[in-house]
Amino acid sequence: MPLPPAELEARLRLHALPGFGPRRHRRLLEAFASASAALSAPASAWRALGLPAGCAEARRSAEVRQQAAMALAWLEQPQRQLLPLGEPGYPALLAELDDAPPLLFVEGEAALLEQPQLAMVGSRRASKPGLDTARAFARQLAGAGFVITSGLALGIDGAAHRGALEASGKTVAVLGTGLQRIYPARHAPLAAEILAGGGALVSELPLDCPPQAGNFPRRNRIISGLSLGVLVVEASPSSGSLITARLAAEQGREVYAIPGSIHHPGARGCHQLIRDGATLVESIEHILEALRGWQNIAPPQPVPPAPTGEWHPLLALLHAAPQTSEALALASGWPLARVLAALTELELDGLVACEGGRWLGCAG
Amino acid sequence: MPLPPAELEARLRLHALPGFGPRRHRRLLEAFASASAALSAPASAWRALGLPAGCAEARRSAEVRQQAAMALAWLEQPQRQLLPLGEPGYPALLAELDDAPPLLFVEGEAALLEQPQLAMVGSRRASKPGLDTARAFARQLAGAGFVITSGLALGIDGAAHRGALEASGKTVAVLGTGLQRIYPARHAPLAAEILAGGGALVSELPLDCPPQAGNFPRRNRIISGLSLGVLVVEASPSSGSLITARLAAEQGREVYAIPGSIHHPGARGCHQLIRDGATLVESIEHILEALRGWQNIAPPQPVPPAPTGEWHPLLALLHAAPQTSEALALASGWPLARVLAALTELELDGLVACEGGRWLGCAG
Repeated sequence: MPLPPAELEARLRLHALPGFGPRRHRRLLEAFASASAALSAPASAWRALGLPAGCAEARRSAEVRQQAAMALAWLEQPQRQLLPLGEPGYPALLAELDDAPPLLFVEGEAALLEQPQLAMVGSRRASKPGLDTARAFARQLAGAGFVITSGLALGIDGAAHRGALEASGKTVAVLGTGLQRIYPARHAPLAAEILAGGGALVSELPLDCPPQAGNFPRRNRIISGLSLGVLVVEASPSSGSLITARLAAEQGREVYAIPGSIHHPGARGCHQLIRDGATLVESIEHILEALRGWQNIAPPQPVPPAPTGEWHPLLALLHAAPQTSEALALASGWPLARVLAALTELELDGLVACEGGRWLGCAG
Repeated sequence: MPLPPAELEARLRLHALPGFGPRRHRRLLEAFASASAALSAPASAWRALGLPAGCAEARRSAEVRQQAAMALAWLEQPQRQLLPLGEPGYPALLAELDDAPPLLFVEGEAALLEQPQLAMVGSRRASKPGLDTARAFARQLAGAGFVITSGLALGIDGAAHRGALEASGKTVAVLGTGLQRIYPARHAPLAAEILAGGGALVSELPLDCPPQAGNFPRRNRIISGLSLGVLVVEASPSSGSLITARLAAEQGREVYAIPGSIHHPGARGCHQLIRDGATLVESIEHILEALRGWQNIAPPQPVPPAPTGEWHPLLALLHAAPQTSEALALASGWPLARVLAALTELELDGLVACEGGRWLGCAG
């Protein structure tokens, strides 16, 4: 059951309070039964919770009311959702964070946020081979059924979103600006493509929030928080991608990194992550292997299970001889992404198994 | 005190027995006071130890006596040593192995075997950049004071030996043939260069033992057994280098691997090792870091400590500003190998320290 409109408006007003982050928001909601109750409580009760006097004063200001009204007006258009923390539809993995966003603004397919996501991040100034690798991995991972989540930035982020779209997969862009201030502007067409492809744009920031340096690192916690794991493609050792990866590790998420030549500066960040414990990834199978366990406890598969009959050609090939997914793609003439998606399903059904990198058909 | 000549001859006879490996050799020596006592014991005592009847019979054969005589004649030339397990001069790390060779034939500088060694192994069919990387790492590691131990094979092994020689460092080649059957023949000049450079050739096999497939994997346990760690430069997943690396890990040695592009098949073996727990290495500093602790418990430094005065220019530069070893090489005009060797010594003397990859001069 969605929140009553008055409570939603009250949440938006709390959210619009200046200097009011996730922890203060949560403290108020825990202390009072609801945001409405918090808003009508005496200022002394707010002070007793250790909140600055200015907050209690600002809650009735015209500006705060206006912000809330603007968000409610925005919400009237189709394909727009507000997801309050603790309410149905709020992504479960993200809700685990201590500093989970109290409200998420979502444009597009909000249901994607409850499906298994894999984050892909990397350098904004990636090399051409790095961009190609990001695109290929995104294509294959999307084909294997993962939603690809990234930050809409130039470089690796953009390549990840594009790769997912090329595989007709789903992709989620988490912005470091308000949803009405797409940044970088050069990626406004990409944002539109993401929406047209059944994806989603997400932000915790007020709709008109412009780009501010401090908001991008905070945005990164949402990218990793939404995802089962984070794949870093190319990154310098001091980049934001490494911050995202460290946050992800702290959040208990898997961190994957793609290695490169020791003479390629763009590989150094990935190498540092691997030295710190990230899993070295050469192909998406290294990720699928690691996440196989997770999928059982994760929300349902994004791709509705297709009838096994459709995948009969693959089963026949595997019963003839165990082989890698690449060999299977060649033998069947199917795109690798489709083969991988099929193998994932068939494995969940117990009809195939992977041993030492080769797939084999199971009896029965 | 060296073994009495009669006992050495008896050890050589045990060693020459057909089908008589390290474990049987050790069992006999543990059961009797000496090899001489074992040779004169009744055949029934040998059978009681579970040794095949043929062994007891063969011990007095002309062939076994001849083998021993040949080894003693070989030993009369200068720069040749026989190191029996358990006697002074036998390398301490190698002696730790369950299947340590009962006898080592050494030509050249046997004292090197007691100095800190780093093994370098990799593909016989390495790429040009792989060979260059091996050579550069060997040069720098030898410059930092490590003896470079490898297997005299084509490819990475050869590049490792050559790199060490280029830095005027020491290098040890462990053969999978007898010392009088250098293999591959194409590397006979390299073997001669190793000796001329004050290095050593080592084998556990009878002097005239020809190349036999089974002896090369067994040789690998000596390469890793002699060394503090094993650096794998380029290797396919099914290569002998990976066997060496696994043996090394079982022996409690550090395993290091150099990553590469995911599109370079030569990097796959290294990536597999890293996924299995090997340390990813981008520069020799990653190895020096990891081995810094070991050096304290390892035999004395191979390079005799030079007077600190000679290294004053480096100290002056480091007291002016902390910097990386590469920057220091540029600033001083010294070769990087010499800078690294100096830093290692200065650090042992407590005059410099490394923090976050940058070196700084210590007060006093």
